[in-house]
Amino acid sequence: MAAEETRLSEAFPMKAGAGPNSYAKNSTYQRGVADAAKELLTKAIAENLDTEILLSSNTFHIADLGCSVGPNTFYAVKNILESVQSKYQSKGPNSQIPEFQVFFNDHTTNDFNILFKSLPHNRHYHAAGVPGSFYGRIFPNASVHIVHSSYTNHWLSRVPKDVTDSNSPAWNKGRIHYLKSTDEVVRAYEDQFARDMECFLHVRSQEIVNGGLMVLTIPGRPDGTPHSHAAANVTYQLLGTCLIEMAKKGIVSEDKVDAFNIPIYYMSPKELEAAVEQNGCFSVEGMEILPYVSTLHSVAKTAPLIALHVRAATEGLFKLHFGDAILDELFDLYCKNLVAQHCIFKSTEVFNFFAVLKRKAN
Amino acid sequence: MAAEETRLSEAFPMKAGAGPNSYAKNSTYQRGVADAAKELLTKAIAENLDTEILLSSNTFHIADLGCSVGPNTFYAVKNILESVQSKYQSKGPNSQIPEFQVFFNDHTTNDFNILFKSLPHNRHYHAAGVPGSFYGRIFPNASVHIVHSSYTNHWLSRVPKDVTDSNSPAWNKGRIHYLKSTDEVVRAYEDQFARDMECFLHVRSQEIVNGGLMVLTIPGRPDGTPHSHAAANVTYQLLGTCLIEMAKKGIVSEDKVDAFNIPIYYMSPKELEAAVEQNGCFSVEGMEILPYVSTLHSVAKTAPLIALHVRAATEGLFKLHFGDAILDELFDLYCKNLVAQHCIFKSTEVFNFFAVLKRKAN
Repeated sequence: MAAEETRLSEAFPMKAGAGPNSYAKNSTYQRGVADAAKELLTKAIAENLDTEILLSSNTFHIADLGCSVGPNTFYAVKNILESVQSKYQSKGPNSQIPEFQVFFNDHTTNDFNILFKSLPHNRHYHAAGVPGSFYGRIFPNASVHIVHSSYTNHWLSRVPKDVTDSNSPAWNKGRIHYLKSTDEVVRAYEDQFARDMECFLHVRSQEIVNGGLMVLTIPGRPDGTPHSHAAANVTYQLLGTCLIEMAKKGIVSEDKVDAFNIPIYYMSPKELEAAVEQNGCFSVEGMEILPYVSTLHSVAKTAPLIALHVRAATEGLFKLHFGDAILDELFDLYCKNLVAQHCIFKSTEVFNFFAVLKRKAN
Repeated sequence: MAAEETRLSEAFPMKAGAGPNSYAKNSTYQRGVADAAKELLTKAIAENLDTEILLSSNTFHIADLGCSVGPNTFYAVKNILESVQSKYQSKGPNSQIPEFQVFFNDHTTNDFNILFKSLPHNRHYHAAGVPGSFYGRIFPNASVHIVHSSYTNHWLSRVPKDVTDSNSPAWNKGRIHYLKSTDEVVRAYEDQFARDMECFLHVRSQEIVNGGLMVLTIPGRPDGTPHSHAAANVTYQLLGTCLIEMAKKGIVSEDKVDAFNIPIYYMSPKELEAAVEQNGCFSVEGMEILPYVSTLHSVAKTAPLIALHVRAATEGLFKLHFGDAILDELFDLYCKNLVAQHCIFKSTEVFNFFAVLKRKAN
């Protein structure tokens, strides 16, 4: 059942532990997103959580998908919990606030030991860790009241199959991502996204109770803009050119670079809406752009910070494919090239949006 | 809430990882107990699980307390799950078998990463890890249908406070356990056990649904026998004399040995029954002695195996207090002394019992 499905998707862990390059220490960028999301989250729950749900169970179940190990997940859960409590309290002074059970989900390769050790001592919920890809079933039928996921839905379940197949027209030779690649590669990524989102919505529709909410913070690109508009896509394009540069110097093999692709896709709100409509089990209750103070106008200055962030989020991928040895050199070169080529970010944007979906009644 | 209470109890992890001295590799002894328990488990569920429980929820929740990392927990869970499924099936061919969610609990210091990676791929349940001492609340009110725990209830929540206090009449100088110690020390351990079991039953009575079961496999001693009858107690007494021997040689400090005590207590079935009666929320539905083929008649031959087992179960404790360096020497000496002094096991017994408790209706 659960295991059967999750085995199909690959695992791309954030860098574990608490070292200087770890995700836990370098997730201030995502934390900024979480801060901005807090207000939207509170509003989303206040306006969209049905009163009947509050009465349906004596335990309220919250799930955070792709929780990683850092503090952001605890911050988000605290915000959700307080919002739900307010909702109960708004029903009158005598309304019984239920107990909360929070499920922290991430890939089996996530460092749950660190996660569990960092659980807040003064938390007002029962905590559980749930290992497995969120592209498979991870919870029982109709058992979760609110699903939250922040900064995870851009991860595909896998690298699109064709882009690493040298016999396919979608072979992505000399690149590690879809930006500035052939139409076939772009389409392979778009198709993979569509299949993954279909799967994501399908399994969540089984797990979330009728009337339950799904609140997602998604890094993407604005409606109607090309992929080149997303700063993150430009980031990975640049990272690809760094690898090619290293291949030319003989530091990594060209074949290895050709076989490597980043399983990330930056969707637009419209693409999400289309997937939700196609699935049919959720209604879109809200879709908002997160305010974000971009530092892209000063890439030259903030390059080390950007490099650190990109490294924290992706080094697991590089390590798995290329080994440890190239990491320092790769990200040093990346930082250098960020400064030298900061102009490529000129017409890009950091764009994060917030989506509130509600599980329709069956 | 949960965190508040669990912080009070100390953590005594089994040896993590998968190395040659790890618990995962050396739990065949406990596995033997699990094999013997399987039949009793099946019978306990068949005879005691109320039909109403099966209809009360569309997810059936099982919790394994003190799961550690080894395969035994998956084996026990599989047995429980199959027994519950049979129960459903016995209600007729059209009875809907629910989904199962299994909570694997152990201390926060347990190696959940290993546990999650070893989850059976063909499992028929949703898995979750729950960190925290089972002497505190770890689950929501009335949320668990079957609690299982095997070979864990002999662990106290902490070393009795007075036995390490040099100003107390219960100071346990020159010993690391209660066997052959003063009456005050024995009483301090008995009191700690009574308090811990009271706490254990209290929190479980809140977490288990009415009619829910608690099935426990407990290493202990037969009713009416002295503490010296339990082979395990003799084992720890011997381990204590090894430490004293090492202190005399100057390998460890005597003060450090005096400050060290093993937080384990071997209860009799009657002691458990008394605690259950005192608590009042459970009925004792079954209490059986597990068949066990003792190897104590040939301690001289099986000493290395016994030493390995005792090391796997307790080395976390020794490491925490004495550091890594003494471990090999301590357990080598222990093995040697086991052979030399095998006669001390003459009038002892390895005794494990199986208890089936049912949560009474409120």
